[in-house]
Amino acid sequence: MPERLQRKAAHSVNDRALADFKVGVDNVIFSVDTAQNRLLVLLVMRQEDPFLGQWSFPGTLVRRGESLEDAAYRILAEKIRARNLYLEQLYTFGGPDRDPRESMDSYAIRYLSVSYFALVRFAEAELIADGVSGIAWYPLDQVPQLAFDHNEVLEYGHRRLRNKLEYSPVAFEVLPELFTLSDLYQLYTTVLGENFSDYSNFRSRLLKMGFLSDTGVKASRGAGRPASLYRFDAEAFAPLKDKPLVFI
Amino acid sequence: MPERLQRKAAHSVNDRALADFKVGVDNVIFSVDTAQNRLLVLLVMRQEDPFLGQWSFPGTLVRRGESLEDAAYRILAEKIRARNLYLEQLYTFGGPDRDPRESMDSYAIRYLSVSYFALVRFAEAELIADGVSGIAWYPLDQVPQLAFDHNEVLEYGHRRLRNKLEYSPVAFEVLPELFTLSDLYQLYTTVLGENFSDYSNFRSRLLKMGFLSDTGVKASRGAGRPASLYRFDAEAFAPLKDKPLVFI
Repeated sequence: MPERLQRKAAHSVNDRALADFKVGVDNVIFSVDTAQNRLLVLLVMRQEDPFLGQWSFPGTLVRRGESLEDAAYRILAEKIRARNLYLEQLYTFGGPDRDPRESMDSYAIRYLSVSYFALVRFAEAELIADGVSGIAWYPLDQVPQLAFDHNEVLEYGHRRLRNKLEYSPVAFEVLPELFTLSDLYQLYTTVLGENFSDYSNFRSRLLKMGFLSDTGVKASRGAGRPASLYRFDAEAFAPLKDKPLVFI
Repeated sequence: MPERLQRKAAHSVNDRALADFKVGVDNVIFSVDTAQNRLLVLLVMRQEDPFLGQWSFPGTLVRRGESLEDAAYRILAEKIRARNLYLEQLYTFGGPDRDPRESMDSYAIRYLSVSYFALVRFAEAELIADGVSGIAWYPLDQVPQLAFDHNEVLEYGHRRLRNKLEYSPVAFEVLPELFTLSDLYQLYTTVLGENFSDYSNFRSRLLKMGFLSDTGVKASRGAGRPASLYRFDAEAFAPLKDKPLVFI
């Protein structure tokens, strides 16, 4: 066989061996109900096979001409109305056999999932019930068996959330704009567990960093002394942005 | 139209709108030439279109039945022999038009790239020249215009490397097993730049963490006093593993 034909034959063998994919985007959306100290994740009930009737992350398959991030925002906008939203890519799950559709005779394609990590403020986020799908904020410790490998995706998301609280000012994407230091501590405790730090160390550590500004306004809640309301000062934080920091 | 048929029709319209993908894996492999204080990244010269003759990351398309990570290891094994290797997923690039093949008439599919971040020890890594492809360790400050969006991928990889040096003991995956504190400092300086910290602060900070053990062996290099050789004590580090730490 002439070399060019040989190469062409080898090329088509290689082509046959390549996997064909559809690409999905799944959003792991966290929120914290600060009033009740609950860490929440948004789940929707599947309305079609596979995993009909099971809870899963809000997701979609990527359309022609659509970027991964656009797909993530599209599905977010269908499920939730929120003024502010933090979104970043989480991890890509693409092993064979992660989706039962792969083994059906009618489809010979694989399903890859690019997961996104999102945070919204609980009080500002409004769920959109479309009249068909179930949708719910699930407390993290009550999440059931999810569709696909979504329990594994959730583990990744939870780890990312913990890391981001430890190393970045992401807490201020979740808290209301004005908050007490006790609200802030409570948020950390809700996500990281009771023993991550005691309140007075946490408080003095964060105040020393210089990006929490006292608004002068006091909040009266319950029986205690009125507490100062703080806000996150993004300008004061700017010079620290690229420095390695630990928040706890 | 009966409702069931309507739904079926709507379903097939949606199906037509979905993008079809091939999935590639690209490895951003870093190493540090500690003798010459150079941060290096492994590039290969492309032997086919698109971007024939341009430098790119070693990559491959995922085959049927192959996981993403298996594909990453497969291409690594074709390019490099190394005893130890650190590998983790970096980021997924999947926007439309990132690959010129997408616009060719003969292919109506998109190319998504899952990038992996790898570290190898320079002295232990042996490049495999396959007689066809060019392959080279490029100093980071001399990397040319790369194929596809690989310069953007490199930026992500470089940021990940800096973050990992700041927050994790990844340096010990790159250094020889026995090293002087000056070697360690030099590695950090090579990656993070001269001004990240002065030597004596860095030295005392790391020694205080308790996972560097003095082997008692001295290394004589050049004219100076012989310096102690240290090794990373993984056992001493274990209790710190899940705590937020800053290494610089």
